[in-house]
Amino acid sequence: MLNPLSESTVCGRPLAECLQMIEAFHGFQAPGLVLGMYMVDWAKGLIGPEVEADAVVETRHCLPDAVQLFTPCTVGNGWLKIVDWDKYALTLYDRRERSGHRVWLDLEKARSFPKLHNWFMRQVPKQELPLEELLPVILAAGRKVLSARAVVLTDLYRRCKKAGINICPSCGEAFAARYGERCAACRGDGYCSPAGRILG
Amino acid sequence: MLNPLSESTVCGRPLAECLQMIEAFHGFQAPGLVLGMYMVDWAKGLIGPEVEADAVVETRHCLPDAVQLFTPCTVGNGWLKIVDWDKYALTLYDRRERSGHRVWLDLEKARSFPKLHNWFMRQVPKQELPLEELLPVILAAGRKVLSARAVVLTDLYRRCKKAGINICPSCGEAFAARYGERCAACRGDGYCSPAGRILG
Repeated sequence: MLNPLSESTVCGRPLAECLQMIEAFHGFQAPGLVLGMYMVDWAKGLIGPEVEADAVVETRHCLPDAVQLFTPCTVGNGWLKIVDWDKYALTLYDRRERSGHRVWLDLEKARSFPKLHNWFMRQVPKQELPLEELLPVILAAGRKVLSARAVVLTDLYRRCKKAGINICPSCGEAFAARYGERCAACRGDGYCSPAGRILG
Repeated sequence: MLNPLSESTVCGRPLAECLQMIEAFHGFQAPGLVLGMYMVDWAKGLIGPEVEADAVVETRHCLPDAVQLFTPCTVGNGWLKIVDWDKYALTLYDRRERSGHRVWLDLEKARSFPKLHNWFMRQVPKQELPLEELLPVILAAGRKVLSARAVVLTDLYRRCKKAGINICPSCGEAFAARYGERCAACRGDGYCSPAGRILG
């Protein structure tokens, strides 16, 4: 059995340090994020250190945090884009060349690691597969359950620029001009109602 | 003039440490993220330390990273939700009580800090307002350009559960079952094309 805190280096850091970073950022050593760490590691290796890569992640769950932790791409700086497909895959790419590498969880390969496969396919309740049992399997699997392929980007390769803003005549706040005259909240599409006076 | 690296504490840490965290995660000390740090700081103070708050952020630009850095909420763990309105506002809330506090950039207050106001409203080209000129203004402004209000959540307060997954008969990968029989990429809505053989 592989010692999970062995000397191995992932994403340019000692594995133990990566696992600490995951816990500090995400709240716990989420199995999907640990797997995502290996996905980022491979994609980074394929694209090479000289490219300042942008990223696309194909699920909202866990995987965006692997990219945010182990590459310079974040949601807030716009270098990471997320498509909400629930596919466990990511692409690092050179936005000028529109070329990159996609890495994904390969279900066929995952069959060699039944606990990992069953966890990913949600075939066992969480209580029956505790983290201390699943995590060593993921650490042992690493790239062995992944596949990768060079790709050419046909969409999403442009960085999003901030568009024009309007000031909403109802709330007085700035908002994306594409929404029209009033902001989404004042048009009734908000997610909250005031419950007290304005402070400050 | 306030010394930006003075003894002040923001989000429970020395200001200098916060600024270092911003640079390490986001790539540089983005003005919007520094302002966002003060927004998170205030929202955290209002909701109190005993609540493990979830978050909604009302823009994709910069602000999500302030929440991800200075609260336990991340995109990948699902505690942070983003609505793409380009409103510079965030809400921290107790998801059981559905109550929280919204903090926003108050344009009226921002008028007292013309450089900040002009930057935010994009009324000056970036080259004319370099970071070393804008950042001290934002550090001096802090909460003085913000407003806050108690709110009740009427939407977005539920944590998203992963839904069912199918295996795509074309690519063999798992994907969100709500997309139907084939995954979005194999239906033609993908963002990249293969440019080499499968590795691994």
